[in-house]
Amino acid sequence: MIDAGQHLADMRARAPLVQNITNFVAMNVMANIMLAIGASPAMNHAHEEVAEFAGLADALSVNIGTLDPEWVIAMEMAARVMAEAGKPWVLDPVAVGATALRRDAGARLLALKPTVIRGNASEIIALAGADSTGKGADTADDVSAAEAPAQALARQTGGVVAVTGKVDYVTDGSAAWRVAGGHALMPRVTVLGCSLTGVVAAFAAGQSPLEATVAALAAYGVAGEMAGRVASGPGSFQVAFLDALHAMTPQDVSARARITAA
Amino acid sequence: MIDAGQHLADMRARAPLVQNITNFVAMNVMANIMLAIGASPAMNHAHEEVAEFAGLADALSVNIGTLDPEWVIAMEMAARVMAEAGKPWVLDPVAVGATALRRDAGARLLALKPTVIRGNASEIIALAGADSTGKGADTADDVSAAEAPAQALARQTGGVVAVTGKVDYVTDGSAAWRVAGGHALMPRVTVLGCSLTGVVAAFAAGQSPLEATVAALAAYGVAGEMAGRVASGPGSFQVAFLDALHAMTPQDVSARARITAA
Amino acid sequence: MIDAGQHLADMRARAPLVQNITNFVAMNVMANIMLAIGASPAMNHAHEEVAEFAGLADALSVNIGTLDPEWVIAMEMAARVMAEAGKPWVLDPVAVGATALRRDAGARLLALKPTVIRGNASEIIALAGADSTGKGADTADDVSAAEAPAQALARQTGGVVAVTGKVDYVTDGSAAWRVAGGHALMPRVTVLGCSLTGVVAAFAAGQSPLEATVAALAAYGVAGEMAGRVASGPGSFQVAFLDALHAMTPQDVSARARITAA
Repeated sequence: MIDAGQHLADMRARAPLVQNITNFVAMNVMANIMLAIGASPAMNHAHEEVAEFAGLADALSVNIGTLDPEWVIAMEMAARVMAEAGKPWVLDPVAVGATALRRDAGARLLALKPTVIRGNASEIIALAGADSTGKGADTADDVSAAEAPAQALARQTGGVVAVTGKVDYVTDGSAAWRVAGGHALMPRVTVLGCSLTGVVAAFAAGQSPLEATVAALAAYGVAGEMAGRVASGPGSFQVAFLDALHAMTPQDVSARARITAA
Repeated sequence: MIDAGQHLADMRARAPLVQNITNFVAMNVMANIMLAIGASPAMNHAHEEVAEFAGLADALSVNIGTLDPEWVIAMEMAARVMAEAGKPWVLDPVAVGATALRRDAGARLLALKPTVIRGNASEIIALAGADSTGKGADTADDVSAAEAPAQALARQTGGVVAVTGKVDYVTDGSAAWRVAGGHALMPRVTVLGCSLTGVVAAFAAGQSPLEATVAALAAYGVAGEMAGRVASGPGSFQVAFLDALHAMTPQDVSARARITAA
Repeated sequence: MIDAGQHLADMRARAPLVQNITNFVAMNVMANIMLAIGASPAMNHAHEEVAEFAGLADALSVNIGTLDPEWVIAMEMAARVMAEAGKPWVLDPVAVGATALRRDAGARLLALKPTVIRGNASEIIALAGADSTGKGADTADDVSAAEAPAQALARQTGGVVAVTGKVDYVTDGSAAWRVAGGHALMPRVTVLGCSLTGVVAAFAAGQSPLEATVAALAAYGVAGEMAGRVASGPGSFQVAFLDALHAMTPQDVSARARITAA
């Protein structure tokens, strides 16, 4: 069994420096979410420093949300450093099926074998080359439809693939887990998925990728449930979610995590 | 009469995919406001994908807040796609009178005949080529001073022009409406105007531009009044405003909208 | 003695237009914090307009958080305008010691003699060319370790240097002040330091730089203490902080400011 609370405690003790090459919509909230749960986030993207900074970081998250070709090059530069150093990096393939630019960026980053890929069902399906109905950052497919594509992607990269949604699915191509939790308001708050990718990177720093990913998703879900009990809409949810990420203890997470073998 | 609640219900039923080429300050809040009221926002700007993405989108919003020449080209590329496809696009001419770069960008985008232009009084006056006293994103002119420039702009573009302020003024060059509502704290929260432009784009997807714009402004004002009743400052206002945008029903909006013929 | 409340009242009466060339993480929150306390912020960065806009602005803040070489050029262009016009500009050397790009940008901006430099201990130590242990935007050094480097920097630039932390230290190379206040949650909320730099720029518009900087830090600390009394985590702190910045009176600040000669 995976003890998500123990993984949270380990992450907090390490307080990993996580480099994030992410989209403009996510940057502020992602930094706040990572600080609230106990990591140390840093955002940068210049070709002149991303590789050097990757050398300092404990983990990397890469997100193609507001990509352009120069940013994709920066993502590749940093990902290569992490891969060579044996440090984890996590890919968030935002709306990867929507345009040729995104499909190309997805393929190039996939070739660098991300330690973990985290996306919604439409994104995982599109990244695996299957047919999806999603267009923007919002999913149009169910998690269950992405299970086989996720397994195929995991076997292709040798890494972990997480499909997040109502009940998340995480696989390394052989073992697989389901993670429940969260709250119905979460899709009504922007970049909570993007920010989760940074949290996965923080957990993966120095921890086994499969267990770390499952634990990060479970902890996020616990915080979402805590926030949902006091929120009255997407604005107050966001506030309560940050408070919950900061206040929740490893014991809270161990007791409330909803993880089952798939 | 314009039934703003009915327009809100129609927008929510459609949940339009709105492409936003907007400024860095606005991106996160704008996405949250659009999600809260029921639209599906997407932010992107790369020359390699904006036109392709515009083909997928139901509406476009363009905002020159943190512009540079490359971004202006992206705005033109996307606006052309919308215009050719007969889909609505909305221009937000942030601080258009402040610098030569902004005046040039304003003129180039104006030439592409935006379906709707939404700005504060200083911006509408400057865009129309009249004299304004505004410098930054904050207005220095009253809405009433911008009525004639708004009419002239509307006749020039064949579109709708909305001047927002204490009481908004909306015209298509012949008919005109006034919309009251909102709250005194709104100018103390950044990018609520920018975000409204995205909401106008969402309402305009598949709806008549003049009525859609008036309805969007009225719904926004109702949410602002709801938020103002529970807020104790600009921080809590922002939270309450997101909650109100999400919670308000078409019936709330129909009952409380303050629309009058001008 | 420095009457921080009087400086706040003067800043509010002036409502200075402050140009901010800052990082993507900070932009929204910084604008909201500056609006809440009573300034008029504007964000822009295009080479084609930064110098022209600087001519309109009352003060400038420059922050290298998500820098790239083109942005550094924009910062230099705007800083030169302010220096030539005798208007204040404030430098925030985010993570300046982390990479060669940052060290180079720091040196180039330092050569333009910022009116005020505001950083955490690790940043001030690194900018002064001393040895620091900090890597990302979070400090790894105590304020006390940065006092001598701050004095050296102030004498080098002829300006003011502020080291912020648990108790802030401000010096112009001869006089020095300590400012207490704030709340333990503040380092758990991103970009509150970056935003403070904008507030310092607003206070410095038309005011003596040393006194203005001390007063800005003291007012920020008072708002932090007010927010800390009602916050239950980093999410609610951020909301309460904006409300407090807006609600606090000059009298509140005069009565609660914790300023001592160093």
